[in-house]
Amino acid sequence: MRIAVDVMGADRGPAEIVAGGVAALKKFGDTQVLLVGDQPTIEAALGQHRLPAEARRRLHIRHASQVVEMHDKVDSIRKKQDSSLVRSMEAVRDGGADAVVAVGNTAATVAVSWFTLGRLEGVPRPGIAVPIPTIKNGPPCVVVDMGANTRPQPKHLAVYGLMASRYSERIFGARNPAVGLLNVGEEQGKGNDFLRESYELLSQQPINFVGNVEGNDIFKGEVQVVVCDGFVGNAVLKAIEGSATLLMTVLREELNKGPFVKFGAALCRKAFRTMRARLDYAAYGGAPLLGVKGVCIIGHGKSNAAAVMNAVRVARESVASNLNTVIVESLSAQRAGATVS
Amino acid sequence: MRIAVDVMGADRGPAEIVAGGVAALKKFGDTQVLLVGDQPTIEAALGQHRLPAEARRRLHIRHASQVVEMHDKVDSIRKKQDSSLVRSMEAVRDGGADAVVAVGNTAATVAVSWFTLGRLEGVPRPGIAVPIPTIKNGPPCVVVDMGANTRPQPKHLAVYGLMASRYSERIFGARNPAVGLLNVGEEQGKGNDFLRESYELLSQQPINFVGNVEGNDIFKGEVQVVVCDGFVGNAVLKAIEGSATLLMTVLREELNKGPFVKFGAALCRKAFRTMRARLDYAAYGGAPLLGVKGVCIIGHGKSNAAAVMNAVRVARESVASNLNTVIVESLSAQRAGATVS
Repeated sequence: MRIAVDVMGADRGPAEIVAGGVAALKKFGDTQVLLVGDQPTIEAALGQHRLPAEARRRLHIRHASQVVEMHDKVDSIRKKQDSSLVRSMEAVRDGGADAVVAVGNTAATVAVSWFTLGRLEGVPRPGIAVPIPTIKNGPPCVVVDMGANTRPQPKHLAVYGLMASRYSERIFGARNPAVGLLNVGEEQGKGNDFLRESYELLSQQPINFVGNVEGNDIFKGEVQVVVCDGFVGNAVLKAIEGSATLLMTVLREELNKGPFVKFGAALCRKAFRTMRARLDYAAYGGAPLLGVKGVCIIGHGKSNAAAVMNAVRVARESVASNLNTVIVESLSAQRAGATVS
Repeated sequence: MRIAVDVMGADRGPAEIVAGGVAALKKFGDTQVLLVGDQPTIEAALGQHRLPAEARRRLHIRHASQVVEMHDKVDSIRKKQDSSLVRSMEAVRDGGADAVVAVGNTAATVAVSWFTLGRLEGVPRPGIAVPIPTIKNGPPCVVVDMGANTRPQPKHLAVYGLMASRYSERIFGARNPAVGLLNVGEEQGKGNDFLRESYELLSQQPINFVGNVEGNDIFKGEVQVVVCDGFVGNAVLKAIEGSATLLMTVLREELNKGPFVKFGAALCRKAFRTMRARLDYAAYGGAPLLGVKGVCIIGHGKSNAAAVMNAVRVARESVASNLNTVIVESLSAQRAGATVS
């Protein structure tokens, strides 16, 4: 199993991403890691780490002379054919890697992945699936689409529901995951024509579609998949991030006021650490771009080494579980059923 | 100044809302409170409180025989013309009250308010403006629309930006509040035709329009108004609520594990209380329905007595600040300017 990691273009710089690749090499003894990016930069970053000779043999470097920056427009990629992003995807396309982990410009990753790898049979548009922790100690809630497709059609949402359902089963072990459609109320018939048609198409999929849900249902642990258009998903994901940052900032400020409180907070340190771990969706290892031929895991632009290592883990599991084959078979069975009925 | 409070149809039951009305009477010596709902229920709830004779004279009751329940559809209101919600709005329309506080069914409140009170001149559609706390110690970020209008046109969003801007100035004392349009990226030209046209129209308003913002910008304190369509706003608000509940639940669970941590948490009790107060957007006192003739403050369905009292405070301030007059004048000046140019 070989995982390509695009080392360039992330917020924390190449050294942090390389550190994540090194951590993955140490953690997963059966996995080869292909670091893609500026070779001297990668080698300098590797100089900071000690790797056993065995792990060193599973490490590969592919030089790429260009970088897709965070704010590059999708159009500009045409002029960056030797970028680490394009080269990483080509490695997957050409068999040099089984999966790619990308932690840079999300829109560019979606575009390059789609055009380089192509779509799975029966998938009209790829979608980003983000696992979010819930109140229950069970599988996370997978929200799809988180921004790959900001102008979707109802049939896109129907396929998102199916793909995320299989992903939840295969990667998080959910049994018959409940799938909800994000809406402004729970009653059937809510929302506009787009939502009503999406509802209809989702209810025809071979999934456990439970109807409309609302934004707070993401966290209740009662549905394992929430389907929404990429515009709403993006706004919701960023609002969740912002609200979590606000809460943690205020908590830190208040726990730093006065010696009594500071002492109390010191006694609670482990509890705060466990809390952060339970809430840290980076621990789920990034968001797969579902629907492309090959495995593409999109990490947060702010990913640290641990998040990159987790993204490599999810990439490995996605490859090992034959997620794409399962998705294609489900879609094909669904189409055959639709033709018969 | 007389504020009508719809006592029925909220999640915590009439006694909690009556308690909020009583608290408002005690707190605001210049304010009359009109409790609207089932008279025996209201009188029984009042029996639990001691009111000085002076405050008792500022308390009024208006009986209504029907209740608009949380899950009543908007259509069904036609059969509930003697509901507390309809009677509250009629009190404002007929001059029996200056403002109404409603903490029940939001969709019904929007519909009854719109049809009973009518729209302000120049306002195509009313919108719900929800103040959200930010990381900075300044005015909150007002997000509009939070669900009054789930199929808006760009001109609706333009007027939302203007109304929320005046609201932020008048109620929260913001100076030249920065107004952002919620989008999937900050660059101009992002999003679909609806968003690009909304961007264009917002930039023509007499407001400090700063361009596109993203979901996490709500919390940064750099913009004081975020404009979005009611579908997205609703999903975002509920996701924020859900994520805050998740964090608080996990925090409580982790701080309850083992005697050391419990002792530490006890020392931090005051810090947690301050934190909750800083994050509690109920403290802002509910969300005004901007754009109707009269003042209508929509509280959360789960509002407790303190939230109702705060909603009465915001209702008072909205009336006293002549917010509606300011909005109408701004819109009229904007139209005149648009005609000239």
